[in-house]
Amino acid sequence: MIKGRFTLPGETGMEKEIKELAKLWGVDAIRDSDGTKLSQDLIDMGLTVYSVLCLVRDDNEWVKKNPDCLQQIYLLTEEHTAYGTELAIDIMSTFFDQQFKPNTDDDIKKYWQVMDRTAGEETKDWDWDGKNVIIHNAKPFHSYTVAFLAYQIWEPVSMYNHITNNWQTEHELTVDPRSEKAREHLLKRLDKWLLDHPKTDVVRFTTFFYCFDLIYNQYGKEKTVNWFGYAACVSPKALSDFEKEYGYSLCAEDIVAGGTYNTPFKNPTKKYLDWMEFNCKFVSEFARQCVEAVHKAGRKAIMFLGDHWAGTEPYGKYFQNIGLDMVVGAAGDGVTTRMITDIPVKETEARFYPYFFPDIFCEGGDPVGESMPVWIKCRRAMLRRPAARMGYGGYISLALKFPEFIDHVTEITRQFKSIHEEGKGTKPYTAPFKVAVLNSWGHIKSWQTHQVAHSLWNQRCYSYLGAVEALSGFPFDVEFISFEDVKAGKLKEYGVVLNMGDAMTSWSGGENWNDPELVCAIRQWVYEGGGFIGIGEPTAYNKDGRLFALSDVLGVQKEIGITASHNKPALTPNKEHFITEDICGAIDYGEGMSMIYSTGAELLDEENRSANLCVNEYGKGRAVYIAGLPYSNQNARLLLRAIYYSAHSEQELYKYYSSNPALECHAFEEAGKLCVVNNSETPQEGEISINGKKRTISLGSMGCEWLNI
Amino acid sequence: MIKGRFTLPGETGMEKEIKELAKLWGVDAIRDSDGTKLSQDLIDMGLTVYSVLCLVRDDNEWVKKNPDCLQQIYLLTEEHTAYGTELAIDIMSTFFDQQFKPNTDDDIKKYWQVMDRTAGEETKDWDWDGKNVIIHNAKPFHSYTVAFLAYQIWEPVSMYNHITNNWQTEHELTVDPRSEKAREHLLKRLDKWLLDHPKTDVVRFTTFFYCFDLIYNQYGKEKTVNWFGYAACVSPKALSDFEKEYGYSLCAEDIVAGGTYNTPFKNPTKKYLDWMEFNCKFVSEFARQCVEAVHKAGRKAIMFLGDHWAGTEPYGKYFQNIGLDMVVGAAGDGVTTRMITDIPVKETEARFYPYFFPDIFCEGGDPVGESMPVWIKCRRAMLRRPAARMGYGGYISLALKFPEFIDHVTEITRQFKSIHEEGKGTKPYTAPFKVAVLNSWGHIKSWQTHQVAHSLWNQRCYSYLGAVEALSGFPFDVEFISFEDVKAGKLKEYGVVLNMGDAMTSWSGGENWNDPELVCAIRQWVYEGGGFIGIGEPTAYNKDGRLFALSDVLGVQKEIGITASHNKPALTPNKEHFITEDICGAIDYGEGMSMIYSTGAELLDEENRSANLCVNEYGKGRAVYIAGLPYSNQNARLLLRAIYYSAHSEQELYKYYSSNPALECHAFEEAGKLCVVNNSETPQEGEISINGKKRTISLGSMGCEWLNI
Repeated sequence: MIKGRFTLPGETGMEKEIKELAKLWGVDAIRDSDGTKLSQDLIDMGLTVYSVLCLVRDDNEWVKKNPDCLQQIYLLTEEHTAYGTELAIDIMSTFFDQQFKPNTDDDIKKYWQVMDRTAGEETKDWDWDGKNVIIHNAKPFHSYTVAFLAYQIWEPVSMYNHITNNWQTEHELTVDPRSEKAREHLLKRLDKWLLDHPKTDVVRFTTFFYCFDLIYNQYGKEKTVNWFGYAACVSPKALSDFEKEYGYSLCAEDIVAGGTYNTPFKNPTKKYLDWMEFNCKFVSEFARQCVEAVHKAGRKAIMFLGDHWAGTEPYGKYFQNIGLDMVVGAAGDGVTTRMITDIPVKETEARFYPYFFPDIFCEGGDPVGESMPVWIKCRRAMLRRPAARMGYGGYISLALKFPEFIDHVTEITRQFKSIHEEGKGTKPYTAPFKVAVLNSWGHIKSWQTHQVAHSLWNQRCYSYLGAVEALSGFPFDVEFISFEDVKAGKLKEYGVVLNMGDAMTSWSGGENWNDPELVCAIRQWVYEGGGFIGIGEPTAYNKDGRLFALSDVLGVQKEIGITASHNKPALTPNKEHFITEDICGAIDYGEGMSMIYSTGAELLDEENRSANLCVNEYGKGRAVYIAGLPYSNQNARLLLRAIYYSAHSEQELYKYYSSNPALECHAFEEAGKLCVVNNSETPQEGEISINGKKRTISLGSMGCEWLNI
Repeated sequence: MIKGRFTLPGETGMEKEIKELAKLWGVDAIRDSDGTKLSQDLIDMGLTVYSVLCLVRDDNEWVKKNPDCLQQIYLLTEEHTAYGTELAIDIMSTFFDQQFKPNTDDDIKKYWQVMDRTAGEETKDWDWDGKNVIIHNAKPFHSYTVAFLAYQIWEPVSMYNHITNNWQTEHELTVDPRSEKAREHLLKRLDKWLLDHPKTDVVRFTTFFYCFDLIYNQYGKEKTVNWFGYAACVSPKALSDFEKEYGYSLCAEDIVAGGTYNTPFKNPTKKYLDWMEFNCKFVSEFARQCVEAVHKAGRKAIMFLGDHWAGTEPYGKYFQNIGLDMVVGAAGDGVTTRMITDIPVKETEARFYPYFFPDIFCEGGDPVGESMPVWIKCRRAMLRRPAARMGYGGYISLALKFPEFIDHVTEITRQFKSIHEEGKGTKPYTAPFKVAVLNSWGHIKSWQTHQVAHSLWNQRCYSYLGAVEALSGFPFDVEFISFEDVKAGKLKEYGVVLNMGDAMTSWSGGENWNDPELVCAIRQWVYEGGGFIGIGEPTAYNKDGRLFALSDVLGVQKEIGITASHNKPALTPNKEHFITEDICGAIDYGEGMSMIYSTGAELLDEENRSANLCVNEYGKGRAVYIAGLPYSNQNARLLLRAIYYSAHSEQELYKYYSSNPALECHAFEEAGKLCVVNNSETPQEGEISINGKKRTISLGSMGCEWLNI
């Protein structure tokens, strides 16, 4: 295969096989990783050499000598109820003692915080016995929590890899670069590392300084994962610097936020936004210094999207200061692919799932079965916005035990490269209106909504994330906008706006829907012709038992118990509609909704007396309500039609159209090419329309064909 | 059959048949109703004569001459969005113009209220054009409502009967007794009526003065029904009297409450409680005068529970002042039966469903099928607390067309009378602990929770009402208590407390669960040995994404989106437990819940990764969580066991026990009798335990057998 765009993980002892694979897949770069080193033979193979570097966990000895520079985190205990006037809380009882150690070196009375959760107030009347926080004069039957600073005595990503692969190495510690001596040490260490790695062409920072929130419980199992968290950026120095910069101080509670750790599912507080910005400024500035050192040494610098990426915020305003040459990320679906490829950076690389790790590459494992749906979803996203490069991770020796997987990767590689070869870097056909996803975060969380971590299925998320997944491969320019953007007049740039999520989360918007300015801006925009799509509990804010603030626009409302006395209209769905034309059988609404009723909308589908799918006219505009939208080819088609419908652009759908929802058309008009993909794992046939001309096409499982237009 | 305890509806022309039925059923009283009159022959039949009287709708002519005494109501329009700066709202557009007429005689600027719902503020800048309220200087895209006073130009219960039976009579108007001249007129009218009805033994007030909220829409169909409402008590005079008495004035919005009309599903405001009390004082005082007049004429006075019963509040503190001899009510199930029979009054009468009306007593109708489940449920309740009397309503001529229905009523009558004959007025066996239902209303809404109107199925209600229905026939003293009661120390009187309902309704309690005093009182009580049962969304108040305030007591929590990042425990239900011992097959949780997870409770049943049934130990106490509990014999047994379990009284269950949940034992120890009932419509067999002695019993459909103990 033509050489280029492929980064292969190296593995010492597999030199011969890697040479063959390099030819087979047209590999042009080889890399090491946490747990694998490249032999000299691999380094000398004529490929670009990527070397992984996680500066902060590179030197256990130095950290041991400088324990004040060990990274820390704020943790919150569970709630403990006082049954008398004294309460002992064993603060580590639900945390992994190999991961965390309470920091009692700094003033615990200053940095720890004991909260009476029942009264919602702090108590200062407590002591520490080396294991428990002893609360004195507790109020009987009030519940209490302790927020405490803890040293991170095992770097969590390495810990995950270590436990998963049963490594026997020393637990890795992390340096906190907040202090000047730590930064000096790290920069020196980087210079030395660059000297020690003369053959390294590309430094793959995995990643910079602070890990996302990955907290294990007392059994050494995952307790909380928040890929977007900033709890692990904390330290007395950081808090003190914050106070100097922002003129006020943060307390433990501002970070742990009642145990939510300021999950992005929550509308952010001003303090938390300040804390994020404070860390982004710091991280981007020091990362910039690291990248400059790499450039000075004549190498390229790339960043892995994940791991210690807290504070890089690729869609934030400080990210571009870092000056990276590329971002590489783990692509598990269309959403994570676009999360990588939309980043404003010169180039991106997608590292596809699955890892060549023994959990899947084992006897009885089905690596092709794991990979195929990943590639099918990533491909859609890359047909919209390709990564410059592709790659894999893990142990080549494991992959080679599955010859059919090697063939499968060959096909993926061929298809991946064809996007560049056939598409020629031109922009695929895009509808003449933009689509916005509206939530409390907007642009900074582009493609990062409704998820707890990378491609991880979550019961509260999948019914919404499915819509974002569908969007990742649609012929629309998709942007993520905030309620502030709406109020600043940005709506006029868009043809269709989506709002989706559970009530009182940042994704649907919570309190924002009690803001007349916002409500009016959207009403007016729809009234004048905009398209509004709500999924789940859009525009939800409980006001006198009326949940949806925009029930007039959506034409639906949800009964939440207060207005049970009001009769609801009969449900007689009209199943024939533009939106449902390609639907076969029942629609899967995922977790779905209950007791949604029409306040004027036309009902297209219902279950258990609850409206699942509705359309509404509002002035010159249109709205669509969907109870939930897990990802599937059928649901993607439903959303595609809903978008064209709400934009009054029904005919645009047929410009490049497949009668079979499992087949999808991506037109590269400038390049004169149309890519038809089979987004399923079985052979599919369908009628393709290209600007009105029709032809039948058959594609095998995961098939991909380029036609001339 | 032995004569007594039976009130039959009379019907002119059916004298011979009624005489026969009177003998067959042991009828001792005959009554007329709205729409039927008794002939002289019926009056002279030797039976006690009940005559229906609804004083306020008895004299259209007088009302026409005194239009200022016509009853009124506050109505709220739908929300209307302003698309420009002027907005016309046709205020009657969603109301039945035969039921209501806007009151423009009183100062509309004083009594009407135009609200900007989007901003949450009133606007005074509006005019009235005889049809529309014209809002000037409207804020574009804000939504507006108009609350307006309307005359009630058709009394709603009569309207319902009229429309249902296609009467051709004049629409009945209602007198508002707020003014002295109206009261004088009504009392005079009552005196005259008593003179005109010398043969009437019992005046059956149906009812007093103000109807519950029954509002029809523009199509002449029911729009809102709130059996517990006070919107129809309103008038300029009432509002002015209120202001004098309470020292502050109410506005329209205080009554319509954003369109909720202060439904009891909502936590009551202080103003609304004042308004209720104000009306209760007035109604009880004038009703007392009417009752006194009846007594002076040597007759008895009874009240129908329903219709114009607003302000009587049978469980309120003014009710007993009225001095009634009896309350009669429509019994459609156990809940409504207990709602009648628990009233603190000398005697009660249950008028069983169905009415002998042509909707059911028609060709193809199944009156026995309608009646059987009603009687089965009412019987359980009456075995706990019997009504002194029974009766029916409607047209005897229709009932006689269904001989099998006549036989069926004969059996019901036999069973009804046996409760008195065999039970001898003694109290049935009652467990040695009391059970409380805890909500925002407490005692005043005894047996009135979770319903919009009498026995009416409602999707938001049935999963909770089922538990109340089960309680209505259980061997427990059941009381309804408020959060204030809990804080006043009342919990110590109870063995088990139930809290059930949707989040943020009065039934689960809403904001009350943010009160540390309440939360602690319950925690302490359970900790010291109390039993707590939560159904649906008990103790729910969203605090940082944690919904259940008593998740420590219940051992469960509900994921509502904010803590999606936290891993949930695996669900491995233990199906073998005391609570589930009598369960066959799947449990029906009704509307159920989603994403309930254990925070320590033992899981007994789950569906779609959500805990449906859990038990928890909390100190010396126990808690049970149930996702929902529609009424069925199996679910009743589940709740019975949950109560005994949470009270640590498992063995008490077996004192009088049936192995078959369709059979139920009611022991009258003092009378030396045990009544076994078949609560199903098919024959049933089961093993009965009577204080350890076992025997097998078979009962036919709806069977009832009295054994000696």
